[in-house]
Amino acid sequence: MLLVFGAAKILGELAESLKMPNIVGEIIAGVLLGPSVLALVQPGQIRELAELGVLFLLFRVGLEVKASDLAKVGRTATLVAVLGVVVPLGMGYLIYRASGASNIESLFVGAAMVATSVGITAQVLAGMGLLNVLASRIILAAAVIDDILGLVVLAIVSSVAKGDVNVLELATTAAISIGFTVFILSFGSKTMMRILPKLDAMMKGVESQFSLALILLFALALFAHYAGVAAIIGAFLAGVALAETVNHRVHVLTQGVTELLVPFFLAGIGLALDVTVLRDPKVLALAGAITVAAVVSKLVGCGLGAWSLGFADAKRVGAGMVPRGEVGMVVAQIGATMGTISQQAYSVVVVMAVLTTVIAPVLLNWTFGSMASEPQESPLTIE
Amino acid sequence: MLLVFGAAKILGELAESLKMPNIVGEIIAGVLLGPSVLALVQPGQIRELAELGVLFLLFRVGLEVKASDLAKVGRTATLVAVLGVVVPLGMGYLIYRASGASNIESLFVGAAMVATSVGITAQVLAGMGLLNVLASRIILAAAVIDDILGLVVLAIVSSVAKGDVNVLELATTAAISIGFTVFILSFGSKTMMRILPKLDAMMKGVESQFSLALILLFALALFAHYAGVAAIIGAFLAGVALAETVNHRVHVLTQGVTELLVPFFLAGIGLALDVTVLRDPKVLALAGAITVAAVVSKLVGCGLGAWSLGFADAKRVGAGMVPRGEVGMVVAQIGATMGTISQQAYSVVVVMAVLTTVIAPVLLNWTFGSMASEPQESPLTIE
Repeated sequence: MLLVFGAAKILGELAESLKMPNIVGEIIAGVLLGPSVLALVQPGQIRELAELGVLFLLFRVGLEVKASDLAKVGRTATLVAVLGVVVPLGMGYLIYRASGASNIESLFVGAAMVATSVGITAQVLAGMGLLNVLASRIILAAAVIDDILGLVVLAIVSSVAKGDVNVLELATTAAISIGFTVFILSFGSKTMMRILPKLDAMMKGVESQFSLALILLFALALFAHYAGVAAIIGAFLAGVALAETVNHRVHVLTQGVTELLVPFFLAGIGLALDVTVLRDPKVLALAGAITVAAVVSKLVGCGLGAWSLGFADAKRVGAGMVPRGEVGMVVAQIGATMGTISQQAYSVVVVMAVLTTVIAPVLLNWTFGSMASEPQESPLTIE
Repeated sequence: MLLVFGAAKILGELAESLKMPNIVGEIIAGVLLGPSVLALVQPGQIRELAELGVLFLLFRVGLEVKASDLAKVGRTATLVAVLGVVVPLGMGYLIYRASGASNIESLFVGAAMVATSVGITAQVLAGMGLLNVLASRIILAAAVIDDILGLVVLAIVSSVAKGDVNVLELATTAAISIGFTVFILSFGSKTMMRILPKLDAMMKGVESQFSLALILLFALALFAHYAGVAAIIGAFLAGVALAETVNHRVHVLTQGVTELLVPFFLAGIGLALDVTVLRDPKVLALAGAITVAAVVSKLVGCGLGAWSLGFADAKRVGAGMVPRGEVGMVVAQIGATMGTISQQAYSVVVVMAVLTTVIAPVLLNWTFGSMASEPQESPLTIE
């Protein structure tokens, strides 16, 4: 634990002094400690902390976002999400098919390129103090929709692989996840405003509001998981529901947990990367092509979706949707467990997922840089 | 996770409304969820979080304590610790020997009754806002010494069990652990005052002071573990070393982490208890006798050690040293792995460890109650 936390922080500082986002350093710390380089840490050892870390990361981001603000950008965000799903799926499928892989394997690789991992973007934007600008809101809203679409795509691809496409089942999955999200976004905030103060008054323990917030966080993450969407979406929605109710102290306490756990999440992404697979020139070439496609397809797809905001914001939204992180890996893992994708395709997806996560902060620094010419103190970090 | 956290919080509230310390409720939540009642959670599932929880608990307590204050009560604390080791060891040995067990098994049971688990006491006193009264300081200092003595006792008992007592090895173990503790207490605080601001100024990341504090926490916990003392003593010492340097924000951020993780530690203690072993009347009787002896021996032993402070404070110190918690279980586990103690003796120790942890908060409420007639807001919880 000391090793992971210390190394992540030190390389984060190093990255910062090289004018790169410190997130990049923390991910590279994971790669270095991981099985393929120093072999000091196994991914399994920090998985629990890493998962908690990304939950708290999204929860903290949610706390800064009002549901009404997300609703306002709903139309643009939907367009961003849809184009951001279709373009990567298509590009990934075509490139992988061209490499000689089977139809279904190419579909899986395409599907693994769909889901944006909004944690990285959220961390960078929070660090720049830009969580509440228009482009950031669109990214956050689009990431939620994107996650639902990704779920539907995964469900479709999996059933195609199994050879039995059950439209009713697919529709149910989609309906439950959409229903859950819309319900929380519509009523969560108001319900919390009514219920939380009463519960808080009833409780005698110290920090009761924080305890209540954590219970809601765990509950919604669990529900989201059972509804089929990612647990982090539940955590984000819990944050949004509480954004207008909880006091400042809950924000700071959450910040404490996040600071402790996020390095494990970031290093955990790096840990997943086995750099030795890149020795095979064919894997290297494919991984390179897929990574470039993953970056370009989101930039173009999501950028087109946000075209109405002008070029600068379209670029920002595109950059924000680039990181795939752990979600792509999960899709690839499902494919591997079903036996529909090869070890090679799995490695390619993992490389793509890690590299997009490393590239995204750089792109974000570049596209959002003009809005925050100096790294600002985030509102999150002012006591 | 939701289950453990939610259940702990709910039963904690319930306990509070029954005028019992909420810690008791959180431990009972663990018993109820554990393998022997509802079997919803296995101890292994939350072990990592529980261990982190108690580390942060002691770290937070350390942050409130000045090294110089601990040194001032050194003489009394040493007396408290020594008598608090000798009396339980003797009583435990005699009772278990009287039940017909072997010499060495009785010694092990006695050794398992030695080590105070200061986490529970610290949590209760912090909740009452009484961490800085004289009795609390003596308890904290005595708990550190007690832990070192407990280590020595365990080392002696283990070597007796192995049949080879190496005095040099024992002396080395003792010297290393004492040296580590004295070194940190003497120089830690001054070194941190000199180094930390410089490092902090060098770092560009947000919350860099908190990151540095966490790195020190993990480092000292690890060193303490290798030096032979409990990792929580290292965490406590890290807190003490930083107490006079770090800013208020680090306190609040630590509080956030602690609030999240401590319920897992408390429920984790409860999870270890297999209530079905108590169906055997012989185990029940022995467990009862050993538990009573565990409570009485610390009250008398440590109370005598603190006699110079007057009856009221002697009672408080005695009560504060009652909980055994996880340390006793670890000793019993070592004995079980060596084959020197039976499954029955192991169960008896676990029951004793859990029950003393449940009894201690009640005793503390009663003995310290006059100092805090109203439950005060702890200085820890004021923003």
